[in-house]
Amino acid sequence: MTTAVVPGSFDPPTLGHVDVIQRASTAFQDVVVAVLLNPSKTPMFSVDERIAMLREIAAQLDNVEVEAFEGLMAEFAAARAPSVILKGLRVVSDFEYELQMAQMNRHLKGVETMFVPTSATHAYLSSSLVKEVAKFGGKLQGLVPPVVERALLSRHPQEHES
Amino acid sequence: MTTAVVPGSFDPPTLGHVDVIQRASTAFQDVVVAVLLNPSKTPMFSVDERIAMLREIAAQLDNVEVEAFEGLMAEFAAARAPSVILKGLRVVSDFEYELQMAQMNRHLKGVETMFVPTSATHAYLSSSLVKEVAKFGGKLQGLVPPVVERALLSRHPQEHES
Amino acid sequence: MTTAVVPGSFDPPTLGHVDVIQRASTAFQDVVVAVLLNPSKTPMFSVDERIAMLREIAAQLDNVEVEAFEGLMAEFAAARAPSVILKGLRVVSDFEYELQMAQMNRHLKGVETMFVPTSATHAYLSSSLVKEVAKFGGKLQGLVPPVVERALLSRHPQEHES
Amino acid sequence: MTTAVVPGSFDPPTLGHVDVIQRASTAFQDVVVAVLLNPSKTPMFSVDERIAMLREIAAQLDNVEVEAFEGLMAEFAAARAPSVILKGLRVVSDFEYELQMAQMNRHLKGVETMFVPTSATHAYLSSSLVKEVAKFGGKLQGLVPPVVERALLSRHPQEHES
Amino acid sequence: MTTAVVPGSFDPPTLGHVDVIQRASTAFQDVVVAVLLNPSKTPMFSVDERIAMLREIAAQLDNVEVEAFEGLMAEFAAARAPSVILKGLRVVSDFEYELQMAQMNRHLKGVETMFVPTSATHAYLSSSLVKEVAKFGGKLQGLVPPVVERALLSRHPQEHES
Amino acid sequence: MTTAVVPGSFDPPTLGHVDVIQRASTAFQDVVVAVLLNPSKTPMFSVDERIAMLREIAAQLDNVEVEAFEGLMAEFAAARAPSVILKGLRVVSDFEYELQMAQMNRHLKGVETMFVPTSATHAYLSSSLVKEVAKFGGKLQGLVPPVVERALLSRHPQEHES
Repeated sequence: MTTAVVPGSFDPPTLGHVDVIQRASTAFQDVVVAVLLNPSKTPMFSVDERIAMLREIAAQLDNVEVEAFEGLMAEFAAARAPSVILKGLRVVSDFEYELQMAQMNRHLKGVETMFVPTSATHAYLSSSLVKEVAKFGGKLQGLVPPVVERALLSRHPQEHES
Repeated sequence: MTTAVVPGSFDPPTLGHVDVIQRASTAFQDVVVAVLLNPSKTPMFSVDERIAMLREIAAQLDNVEVEAFEGLMAEFAAARAPSVILKGLRVVSDFEYELQMAQMNRHLKGVETMFVPTSATHAYLSSSLVKEVAKFGGKLQGLVPPVVERALLSRHPQEHES
Repeated sequence: MTTAVVPGSFDPPTLGHVDVIQRASTAFQDVVVAVLLNPSKTPMFSVDERIAMLREIAAQLDNVEVEAFEGLMAEFAAARAPSVILKGLRVVSDFEYELQMAQMNRHLKGVETMFVPTSATHAYLSSSLVKEVAKFGGKLQGLVPPVVERALLSRHPQEHES
Repeated sequence: MTTAVVPGSFDPPTLGHVDVIQRASTAFQDVVVAVLLNPSKTPMFSVDERIAMLREIAAQLDNVEVEAFEGLMAEFAAARAPSVILKGLRVVSDFEYELQMAQMNRHLKGVETMFVPTSATHAYLSSSLVKEVAKFGGKLQGLVPPVVERALLSRHPQEHES
Repeated sequence: MTTAVVPGSFDPPTLGHVDVIQRASTAFQDVVVAVLLNPSKTPMFSVDERIAMLREIAAQLDNVEVEAFEGLMAEFAAARAPSVILKGLRVVSDFEYELQMAQMNRHLKGVETMFVPTSATHAYLSSSLVKEVAKFGGKLQGLVPPVVERALLSRHPQEHES
Repeated sequence: MTTAVVPGSFDPPTLGHVDVIQRASTAFQDVVVAVLLNPSKTPMFSVDERIAMLREIAAQLDNVEVEAFEGLMAEFAAARAPSVILKGLRVVSDFEYELQMAQMNRHLKGVETMFVPTSATHAYLSSSLVKEVAKFGGKLQGLVPPVVERALLSRHPQEHES
C-alpha cells in the first residue's frame, strides 16, 4: 500500500520524466507526482501549466495523481505515509546530489528514497537542455511528449524543423 | 503486490545488508533475499551457511524469505512478477556498475531495478573488508550482526578484541 | 610546527565543519579557520556573525583561531608558512573541484592541500541544505551546533519542531 | 577531410584551450574554433576580443580558423559536414556533462563528438579560476598564453607578481 | 590522413564495439582495429576467432583493417603515424582508467588518444556481461552482431530463447 | 608531533609515491613508510627489495623511516599515536575506495586518514602500469626513480630504449 512520491520541477516534463512516472505506476499502489513551486526561480511554465501537462501525460495511468508542493519534500511525503520518494537517475553526477537529499530526508522525517534508472535512450535529457533546443528551433520529437512539444512551440513561434 | 528481490553474495551479510533488507520489508509487500551461488568463486561461507545466517537475521520480518539462486537474476525476478530487483547503494562507484546491470536486466526480461541508499553509517562496509578485519582480529561489533560475528570468530579463533 | 588553514564560507557552520575543525585541532600544532569574505554573494550571516559563531564553537580548542580572509587562499596560507590548507571531504563530487583548487594553489604559491573525510553521519550536510531546512521549519538538531541553531531560528521565527 | 569544430566560451582562452586546439590541428584536416556568443551571461571579454586573442594564439596553425557562433552547436557543426565536435576533457565531472551534450547533438543532427584529454599539467585550469587569480593579482604565467596575460593585466592594473 | 587505431580485447565483439568501429570509419581516413593478444588471460575466443568475427563485422567498411597486437599500444600506434588511438566511452568509470592510459601513451610515444561516446542504447554492454548472459541462455539479440551470436551459441549449446 | 604513516604495496615505488613521501616529510614531524606484506599476492619485488629501494629514495629525508607491515593498517598506525594515515590521491576512483578504508580505520581504532593530491604530472602513474611498460621495454624515465629503473631493467633484460 506504499505511495510513491515523484518530485520535480518538470519545467517542462521530458520523456525521461514520463518514463519514471510510468515505472512508478507499475511498481507502486499509488503515485503522487509532486510539482515543486520554487519562488526563487523564474520558471518557463507556471505551476498550473506544468500540472496540466503532467495530468494530460498521466491520463491513462489510473493510480497517478499530480499535486503542487512547496516546502520540505520530507514533510510532503511523510504526510502520505506509508510512502517512499521515487527519483529517476540518469547519470552518476545526479546520484551524488540525490544521495545527499535522501540522507537528509531520512534524517528529517524517516522517509525513504528509492531510485530507478531512466531508460538509456533518455539519459541525456534534461528540462534545461530541452528549453535550449526549443529556443533555437531544434527538433523536439524524441525529447518531450506531444503536449509539451506544442507548449514549447507556442512559446518559441519561429520556424521549427519537423 | 510487488515483490522486491534483494540479490547478493552475502559472504557474509553485513549490517549494510541488514539495513537494506529492513527497508525492503517496510516498502514492499513481499521480499525475497536471493543468495548468489557463484561456482567460479570460493566463498568463505557455503550457500547453506549464508542462507541460515540471513534467515536468523530476518526472523522478525514476516514478509521476508531467503532463497539460493544461480543463473540470470533477470529470470529469477521475472519468475516472481510483479517484482523489482532492489539493491542497496553505498557509493558512486557501486552505482555505475549497478546501472549497467539494471539496463541489462531491463533488456533481458523487462525487470525493473530500484536502488535504496544504505544508512550513512554503513557506507564504508563491504563483505570483503569485514573478512579482512576478522582475519586480523579486529573489532567486529558495529560491522555485522551477532550471528555473523560468531560465525567469523569460529573461523578465526585467535584472540579478538571485545 | 605546521599550521593547518581551514577555509570556507561557513554560512552557517554545520556539524560537518565542526567535525573538520576538531580533527585539524588534533593533528596539527595550530589551526586557522579562514572565513571567506566573498563580495559577489549575499550571505545569510555577515562575516562578523560567522566569525563569532565559529569562535564560540572552537572555544574549547586552544590551538584554533578564526580569521576573515579575502583574496587568494594560496597567499593567505603562504603568509602562515609552514602551512597546509586542510579541507573536509564529504563526497566524490567535492573531491574533483577541490583537486583542481589544490593544484592551482600549489602552482601559485607552492602551498599543499590535504583532505580529511568528514564523519559518515555528516556526509549529507551542507550549509545551503541547512538553510533550506531552517526556512521551512524543519528539525535542526543533528545538523548544526546549538549556537547556529539559535541564530537560524532567530532568522526564521515561525513555529519549529523540537 | 573531416573538420573538427572546437566550441567554447574562451573567456579568456587558457593554456588548456591552446593545448586542445594544437592537438586538433595535428589530427584533423581543418579546425574551426567556435566562440560561443551567449547573451545570457556577461563575459569579461567581448566575442571580438576573444576571437582576436584566439587568432593570435593560432597564428602558426595554418588549418585553424576562428568564428563566432550562436544557437545550437549541432547545427553549426552539421553545416560544416563532414565534421566532428572536438572537446578537451580535463576531469571526470566534465565528462558526464559533455556526454549528455554529445548524445543530444547526435540526436539533433547526427553529429559526432570526440574527446581529447588535455595535458595533465593543465587539468586544473579553467577560465573562471584564471579570472579569479587575475582579479587578486596572482601569477598568470603557466596558466594563459602571453596575449591573454596582457589582456588580463590591462583589466586588473594593480601590482602583479612577475 | 590520420589513422585511427581502435584497440580492445573484443572477447567477443559487442554491438557497442561495432558502433565505435563504424563511427571511426566515418571520421577517419583509415581505421585499424587492434585485437589484444593478452597471454595472461584465458579468453573465450582465440585471437584468430576474434579477428575473423571482426573482419566479418567490418566487411562493408572499406577503410577498416583488423590486426592482432601484443606489447605496448603506444608503439603499435606510433608505427602507424600519423595516428590516434580511438576508444569508445560508455560510462564515467571507463573514462578515468582510459584517461590514465591516454596520459601514459602520450608520455611513451607522443601518441594522442581520442574518445567517442557509444550509443546510449549500448552503454550497458560489455563483453563479460554478454558472456554471462550467453552462459545462462539469455537473449543475445540486441547485444551482439549475428556472427557473434552464432559463435556464442555454439559454445553454449543449451536451449536458448529466440 | 603527529607521525604520518604512508602505507602501500610499492611494487615498485613510482615517482608518484616519491612525490607523496616528500610532501609528507615536509608537513609532518615524522614519517613512516609502511610496506604492505600481502601473502595472497605474488609481488614482482620482495618486501626486502621494496624496503631497500624506498630507503635509497628517502635517504635525503631525515624524518622518514621505512618498515614492513602485515595485518590491519589501523593497528599499525594506532601503535604510533599521535598519528595519521597519509595517502596520495591521483584520481576520483581512488578516492572512493580510500574513503571507505578511511571510515573503516576510524571505526576500528579512531585513526584519521588524510589525503594529499599527487603532482598532476604523476596522476597517470601506477605500479601496475609501470610493470607493463617495463615488460615490453618502454621508456621508464619520468615514471620511476633511477634505483627502480635499474631494478626493473635487471628483471627485463631485453633491449630498452634510452
